[in-house]
Amino acid sequence: MIFDFFIPTRIQFGAGSLNKLGTESLPGKKALIVISAGKSMRKNGYLDRVTSLLDLQKIDYVIFDKVLPNPIRAHVMEAAELARKEKCDFIIGLGGGSSIDSAKSIAVMAKNPGDYWDYVGGGSGKGMPTTNGSLPVVAITTTAGTGTEADPWTVITKEETHEKIGFGNDHTFPVLSIVDPELMLTVPSDLTAFQGFDAFFHSSEGYLAKVADPISDVLALKSIELIARYLPLAVKDGSNLEARTQVALANTLAGMVESLSSCTSEHSMEHALSAFHPNIPHGAGLIMLSEAYHSFFLDKVPTRYADMAKAMGENVDGLSVRDQAAAFITALLKLQKACGVDGLKMSDYGVKADEVSTLAENSWHAMGGLFDVDPHLLTMDDTIAIIKRAYK
Amino acid sequence: MIFDFFIPTRIQFGAGSLNKLGTESLPGKKALIVISAGKSMRKNGYLDRVTSLLDLQKIDYVIFDKVLPNPIRAHVMEAAELARKEKCDFIIGLGGGSSIDSAKSIAVMAKNPGDYWDYVGGGSGKGMPTTNGSLPVVAITTTAGTGTEADPWTVITKEETHEKIGFGNDHTFPVLSIVDPELMLTVPSDLTAFQGFDAFFHSSEGYLAKVADPISDVLALKSIELIARYLPLAVKDGSNLEARTQVALANTLAGMVESLSSCTSEHSMEHALSAFHPNIPHGAGLIMLSEAYHSFFLDKVPTRYADMAKAMGENVDGLSVRDQAAAFITALLKLQKACGVDGLKMSDYGVKADEVSTLAENSWHAMGGLFDVDPHLLTMDDTIAIIKRAYK
Repeated sequence: MIFDFFIPTRIQFGAGSLNKLGTESLPGKKALIVISAGKSMRKNGYLDRVTSLLDLQKIDYVIFDKVLPNPIRAHVMEAAELARKEKCDFIIGLGGGSSIDSAKSIAVMAKNPGDYWDYVGGGSGKGMPTTNGSLPVVAITTTAGTGTEADPWTVITKEETHEKIGFGNDHTFPVLSIVDPELMLTVPSDLTAFQGFDAFFHSSEGYLAKVADPISDVLALKSIELIARYLPLAVKDGSNLEARTQVALANTLAGMVESLSSCTSEHSMEHALSAFHPNIPHGAGLIMLSEAYHSFFLDKVPTRYADMAKAMGENVDGLSVRDQAAAFITALLKLQKACGVDGLKMSDYGVKADEVSTLAENSWHAMGGLFDVDPHLLTMDDTIAIIKRAYK
Repeated sequence: MIFDFFIPTRIQFGAGSLNKLGTESLPGKKALIVISAGKSMRKNGYLDRVTSLLDLQKIDYVIFDKVLPNPIRAHVMEAAELARKEKCDFIIGLGGGSSIDSAKSIAVMAKNPGDYWDYVGGGSGKGMPTTNGSLPVVAITTTAGTGTEADPWTVITKEETHEKIGFGNDHTFPVLSIVDPELMLTVPSDLTAFQGFDAFFHSSEGYLAKVADPISDVLALKSIELIARYLPLAVKDGSNLEARTQVALANTLAGMVESLSSCTSEHSMEHALSAFHPNIPHGAGLIMLSEAYHSFFLDKVPTRYADMAKAMGENVDGLSVRDQAAAFITALLKLQKACGVDGLKMSDYGVKADEVSTLAENSWHAMGGLFDVDPHLLTMDDTIAIIKRAYK
């Protein structure tokens, strides 16, 4: 039992915690506020609230509002240039994972020369060290999905090469994250489900990964328990603040799990899917892969699956370990149904059956590292078989 | 559900992890190494290993080796003066809680003017802010008791006024903590028990405190479970590395619980005991108070006690909540017996029956703040009654 615990982020959690932006010590005097190209941050008044709270602290800001749902390298470079030109000394990511991940990558490129892909470690990235560190990042989440507020990871797509790759290091943890479930009350029901499942897979993959440790384990099981119990409620009634709060907590826990343990190759396969089909929400991609993926690993680490089945509320008393493990698949499908996402099909998103090999190869090319932490080493044939089985 | 998560310390955990001191990035070029006045750090070769690893990194050092089991203000001031004179730019605490707590307090006084008690918040302390922060601290634990490696707290005694008071802030978290259970194999069996119970009470009080949050809860229950299961094994056979490792983990988890939640007034009462009777090991003091203390709170928060009883392995199926809660006391006494500490008496340590009121008053005077987070507010009469009931 050898592990390294490091989560330096201060996390202010709870309904109403956005107001702390007006009082909490902030890491600079001029912020680049990064938001999505969508309308929700303005329409819901979140951007106005953030800028008013910054005004209270006499902190200046400029806004970058072009981030796409699958954020791209070109925008990282454009916003980093803006941050330099405007002499911003910290970055605020306001929104979902795409905005906060972008904020992290922009913070890196505002301090380091060259191109973002010089520093990315997978695929065609050059894996150079970010010698100058990063500007400090403040994360304000308005969704519960990526856990990025509690981990160093950022996922950016290089469109030209269909590479959607995770990146992060000690400098890319947010210095401050504000998780205010009240900001999540407006998330539409389908996105609530997709994002909640993303958090679910962060925790379940983090529990299965070979690099799991005793601390990531307790956080992962708690996260899995909360999602199984509260995600259907949040999907059904988005205004249920208790359900939103518990799902937000589950997601923050999942981010911690990502900091301490790791995603597995289920995420590599999904990144391939949404790199080629950016119209697929990341959570939806994971949902479509999940039954095939986890059925493959079930008998490799049955006790881990049994633990997760129990955390999801399955009664496994008196069952063999194998059947306890299989109860995880039952619980997974039940949860998909309860959240109204049991009927998703890759073909509905334009994925063709003959893409399977390309997707498998891309998942190894761009995110091959995650296969190393799988509880059992997949071959390329296994990878193809899983994606083929998942294809509908 | 509103909480603040902040544990910025990097924790390297596991057998053999001391060697990472030779490779890990350290926060300075010249260390003040703080060790106890006892012989164990030299006799066991730990000091030599630490200095050799620093040599590898070409890091200079001076040694302060006067720390007492209940560390005192005068030594904090003396060592801080030494750190200034020798131009040390970081502090290494090597040993048990007394050395690491001293390292934290020395790190504060190496950067701030005046007297340590100017900054202490309780008792006769002036509660001034430590405007200059603190030198960075590296903690290397050789016992599993205080959890100080994973929290900002330091407990120092002002002998003249019989005040044993906790202090800490964002700057007094260690920047790096190394928890190597191999260094704990030499701890004698009685100290193993006392220290393990200290960790146990950090977790159980942290679970009971009004400021507990969902993250401290899962960490506390895991810590309680591990101590109930492994502490008797570590006490019985100090060379059992698995038991040492699990108890070390439980202790680090307990430190995290202290960072996120809080001790309760059980600790205030114990600080009074060992401020007047420095021959009482802190853990022994807690053990002697515990049955009376927890019996008082049992029916105030029965479900919390029931959760802890379950974590300790008690079978509570079919019992009323009240009886489930009472099972905590059964488990506590069972654990004391299994660790050979069920026969401790205050009178054996020289405590007189007529000191009870003085002790109760001191616990409110020096550490009154912890009474505020108790699950039920004690009066002075309640406090006297608890100490009186605990007295043998």
